[in-house]
Amino acid sequence: MSTPIFGAGLWNFASYVDRYATDGYAEPVSTLEQIRIAGSVGDLSYVDLNFPYSHDATLDEIKEALAAADLKAIGITPDIYLRRFGRGAFTNPDPAIRVQAIDLMHKAAEDVRALGAKYVKLWPGQDGWDYPFQVHHGDIWKLAKDGLKELASAHPDLKFVIEYKPREPRVKMLWDSAARSILGIKEIGLDNVGVLLDFGHALYGGESPADAAQLLIDHDLLWGMDVNDNLRGWDDDLMVGTVHITEVFEFFYTLKINNWEGVWQLDQFPFREDTVETARTSIRFLKAINRALDELDYENLRLAQTRQDAIAAQRIVQDALLSCMRSES
Amino acid sequence: MSTPIFGAGLWNFASYVDRYATDGYAEPVSTLEQIRIAGSVGDLSYVDLNFPYSHDATLDEIKEALAAADLKAIGITPDIYLRRFGRGAFTNPDPAIRVQAIDLMHKAAEDVRALGAKYVKLWPGQDGWDYPFQVHHGDIWKLAKDGLKELASAHPDLKFVIEYKPREPRVKMLWDSAARSILGIKEIGLDNVGVLLDFGHALYGGESPADAAQLLIDHDLLWGMDVNDNLRGWDDDLMVGTVHITEVFEFFYTLKINNWEGVWQLDQFPFREDTVETARTSIRFLKAINRALDELDYENLRLAQTRQDAIAAQRIVQDALLSCMRSES
Amino acid sequence: MSTPIFGAGLWNFASYVDRYATDGYAEPVSTLEQIRIAGSVGDLSYVDLNFPYSHDATLDEIKEALAAADLKAIGITPDIYLRRFGRGAFTNPDPAIRVQAIDLMHKAAEDVRALGAKYVKLWPGQDGWDYPFQVHHGDIWKLAKDGLKELASAHPDLKFVIEYKPREPRVKMLWDSAARSILGIKEIGLDNVGVLLDFGHALYGGESPADAAQLLIDHDLLWGMDVNDNLRGWDDDLMVGTVHITEVFEFFYTLKINNWEGVWQLDQFPFREDTVETARTSIRFLKAINRALDELDYENLRLAQTRQDAIAAQRIVQDALLSCMRSES
Amino acid sequence: MSTPIFGAGLWNFASYVDRYATDGYAEPVSTLEQIRIAGSVGDLSYVDLNFPYSHDATLDEIKEALAAADLKAIGITPDIYLRRFGRGAFTNPDPAIRVQAIDLMHKAAEDVRALGAKYVKLWPGQDGWDYPFQVHHGDIWKLAKDGLKELASAHPDLKFVIEYKPREPRVKMLWDSAARSILGIKEIGLDNVGVLLDFGHALYGGESPADAAQLLIDHDLLWGMDVNDNLRGWDDDLMVGTVHITEVFEFFYTLKINNWEGVWQLDQFPFREDTVETARTSIRFLKAINRALDELDYENLRLAQTRQDAIAAQRIVQDALLSCMRSES
Repeated sequence: MSTPIFGAGLWNFASYVDRYATDGYAEPVSTLEQIRIAGSVGDLSYVDLNFPYSHDATLDEIKEALAAADLKAIGITPDIYLRRFGRGAFTNPDPAIRVQAIDLMHKAAEDVRALGAKYVKLWPGQDGWDYPFQVHHGDIWKLAKDGLKELASAHPDLKFVIEYKPREPRVKMLWDSAARSILGIKEIGLDNVGVLLDFGHALYGGESPADAAQLLIDHDLLWGMDVNDNLRGWDDDLMVGTVHITEVFEFFYTLKINNWEGVWQLDQFPFREDTVETARTSIRFLKAINRALDELDYENLRLAQTRQDAIAAQRIVQDALLSCMRSES
Repeated sequence: MSTPIFGAGLWNFASYVDRYATDGYAEPVSTLEQIRIAGSVGDLSYVDLNFPYSHDATLDEIKEALAAADLKAIGITPDIYLRRFGRGAFTNPDPAIRVQAIDLMHKAAEDVRALGAKYVKLWPGQDGWDYPFQVHHGDIWKLAKDGLKELASAHPDLKFVIEYKPREPRVKMLWDSAARSILGIKEIGLDNVGVLLDFGHALYGGESPADAAQLLIDHDLLWGMDVNDNLRGWDDDLMVGTVHITEVFEFFYTLKINNWEGVWQLDQFPFREDTVETARTSIRFLKAINRALDELDYENLRLAQTRQDAIAAQRIVQDALLSCMRSES
Repeated sequence: MSTPIFGAGLWNFASYVDRYATDGYAEPVSTLEQIRIAGSVGDLSYVDLNFPYSHDATLDEIKEALAAADLKAIGITPDIYLRRFGRGAFTNPDPAIRVQAIDLMHKAAEDVRALGAKYVKLWPGQDGWDYPFQVHHGDIWKLAKDGLKELASAHPDLKFVIEYKPREPRVKMLWDSAARSILGIKEIGLDNVGVLLDFGHALYGGESPADAAQLLIDHDLLWGMDVNDNLRGWDDDLMVGTVHITEVFEFFYTLKINNWEGVWQLDQFPFREDTVETARTSIRFLKAINRALDELDYENLRLAQTRQDAIAAQRIVQDALLSCMRSES
Repeated sequence: MSTPIFGAGLWNFASYVDRYATDGYAEPVSTLEQIRIAGSVGDLSYVDLNFPYSHDATLDEIKEALAAADLKAIGITPDIYLRRFGRGAFTNPDPAIRVQAIDLMHKAAEDVRALGAKYVKLWPGQDGWDYPFQVHHGDIWKLAKDGLKELASAHPDLKFVIEYKPREPRVKMLWDSAARSILGIKEIGLDNVGVLLDFGHALYGGESPADAAQLLIDHDLLWGMDVNDNLRGWDDDLMVGTVHITEVFEFFYTLKINNWEGVWQLDQFPFREDTVETARTSIRFLKAINRALDELDYENLRLAQTRQDAIAAQRIVQDALLSCMRSES
């Protein structure tokens, strides 16, 4: 049994605010402190860093902190969703703001290079609209693609991954599904742009995360992923495995049969819980899923799927899944 | 470890039609044949019968068939949603149809008495509306309550259970949630009207099924239940345990800590699957859930809940739940 | 034609933050400044004030500001959802925090009295849960009711209104629907607790807002309301009338036929828009709705509803609704 | 002001069955009778015909009936969702059934040619899955594309349109969104396969129908459309304009600014209403929308959209939309 390599967005170890608890659910946590906390989880090898780093931390300080915590950077996520970009980053109606957004992403790209990380992660959460008739749909989609093309063209040695999401903070986001992301990337026509699939985004967007993963893999575009859970209506960013166990298992099964090699990352927002213990509880669950993958009867499952036989498939799956915690011992 | 007593709606063993496959997914199955098939599942003790019985089967034939299949009737569900009642049963705008609907329910009540079943189950699926402005909301809700009151008053020796559901076949149903059902029953003011909670209806209606069960229990109104699964957006009536394992477990946990004694019933619509094997697969899962209930660390779970400690609660739950299939041996 | 009296939550004129734009979409706006801005809208008579007031504004300063802006206080909404109460107010697992929450609400009640406002508005947004198994559903619901009973009992001369909402910021809120709210209020058994219905909360909770209003009116519990809009999946708090025109109309129609007299309040979160212009645009729409109410053919609509005739009802409604902007001149 | 050309699926004039009202909401209506009824609506120029025709009607009889009703065939929709294809048409696990499905579609194609209709419409409603783990997602998507490629390749002189839909009757359908449909069509690589956009499918699938239309237009793939309405949670197939007036308007606005020329088709399932009157009520609304399109201030709307100014855009839109019924006179 191979052990997965685990990672997490550094924001898993931050504190959080929302539109009601405007004073934040806890005291702010600096980037360097977040790295230290991530290191204390015990099973993490990689982190994804928000950029810029808080408190003017320098790249050297970041490197040091990562080394001290025995962590590597998998990627950097530029903060293209703060106030300045509240009405959009790539698609801001103000061309000057679009320039600022791309400048910030250029800087993030430089640090990806300097850290030897795998990618610049782009989550253009403010690129979209809130009201019917607010935008010309063709124009705004063109802005989204043109900006990304300009950015990625400037760094042919680096990879860029889009993390799609149906909505929030905008009422509707442009990069909203696996299919639309693939389509947009094809229209851009660069080979250094791919996708990071967030399990929860797929789930509450009405996709089957496993199907979305397969579609992306078939287009050679699944370059990263993270997991969490929700109630299918919103991006709750709960601990993985607390609600949709079977679909998490199907997602990892799909990765495995495609020999997808990559980091199993967490993307959770523990507003009210201990950030280290939520990460540990999720990893404990993911290790159980990994054992279930080892015990699964692949041959008969594959045969059942060829027949599209839901009964046989579910029995095989339940045998492995509903035993995976016990087999720990 | 006590073994649950299992039951199923007889429609679990029918064939199905929908608005597209208008020729039905399989040949029609008669009531008597459905009983025979239910008996072949092997773990069922009770069935809920649609009324009237197909092919003019007599009550004596039904009794015989039940005896031959080693089954008892838990209840009878009058067909108050067929063409005649397409625009409503209790709430049909035509008073003559309302009379016909109640007449049919009177007849069903007589058979409940004759069979020694536990209740008349009312699922007024056509009582509601499709369009904004179609109804006066106060008037139609009054019709719904008045009709039920008239019916239940006439049979003080019998129990009546309302099975609430958010929608389908009407775009919106009147008896749509646990809270609304309790409220309506209180307004009616009779003590022989209660609720049958369908796990899937609660789930796709945005309730926590466990919370809905607790609320009903606290009002002494949880008189029946059935389980199945769905994707939270529609009443898919899938095999129980195929999607929302944790919430099924929480539902049965809630019943157990309240010492709720009753039949674990199935309400599935296996459009494209073998009806006996879907029932067996669901019961196999429910037996595993029952084992998990036996192995659960109640004391620490209760302590965690007192602290509202999601991390501790989930670890305790996963320990039991993700081992329940293995512990079979 | 009577003109409605308009009001707005003072937060309509604040600035906003969310979990991504953690630096806020604009600079903070003080309570006193919010009052001044509300006054500049031009059609508002009432505001609902968050409590405590920012920057230690005194009650006298608030009174002065209201007078200067020609506004009255309709109610006060204590901030029982900030960090301190992030794990619950009435239902916080820590009894000491529950005491603090009720203390804060007592203080808000005193100011309601001092301002001659109509009610204390309670929106217990943190009272609920995030994960399956996190809480004992009976215990937490009891905490919610007991706390409210303690509070309202202490102020028999004042009114308290619960604003229910399905979720957010908790994954699930306890006071989540009209029916559940009525039920809880009946269990509490006090006659100074009622409900404020938020149109958007009803809509995305799967209710018909018109039906929810009628149910509350029939229980004499509709003591306040506010309007906005959303895409039925989340509490987007958009400008009213930008998406669900017909259902807004049905909501106000229901109020009118019940002779409900009260303030038409706005509850909008214009994250990225000018706060005064969003209020003005909404009020412009509401005035058009009011004209449509004047032109509606009530008699034939009522007849159509008696027949549950969606076609006739919709034609009558469209005649009034789709002419209401033109009739302005 | 140009008048739109109206059309309707012939099923708008059928009778309906669902899984509860298994005896149907009304007596069956033959194909020839449906054509006659469609003709009686008065404003329809085109119909889309289900295939095969009921009661063994011959093509000549169909032609005659169309001529008598002053109707033309816009397309033919083969019944690839009846019992035989209940487990899939293009993606049925049984290769023999796949052959049967394609054979049926070949026959439909011949009649499209014979009738001079615009396209074969494919709605593969049974191509998908119901349960997690039921299918290998890559394999089934390949079957879907391969079958369509085989079919369309055989008729290079004809057009084929896919009508995508998120779900129903399958819990999940393969062709589920505009983006996925475009992607699949590009993978197939034929230039005689396009898309028919159903407004309601886009809406309840979480798309903006206007955005989906623009995306399809930008790929030269919007070859047909139909409209209806729903509550965003299911394909309710209500009369158009009864719920989501603004988004219908935005959809037609998008078609207009792109100079999209085509038939405005209805796709409604009036289970409980008169089929002719529902069509007439919808067309009455669509004519009002057409007037609103004539009165819209395009220039200022375009400027507002360039600024992504929701307030200005909504005011302009409301001015036209909320006057369109009055301007009839």
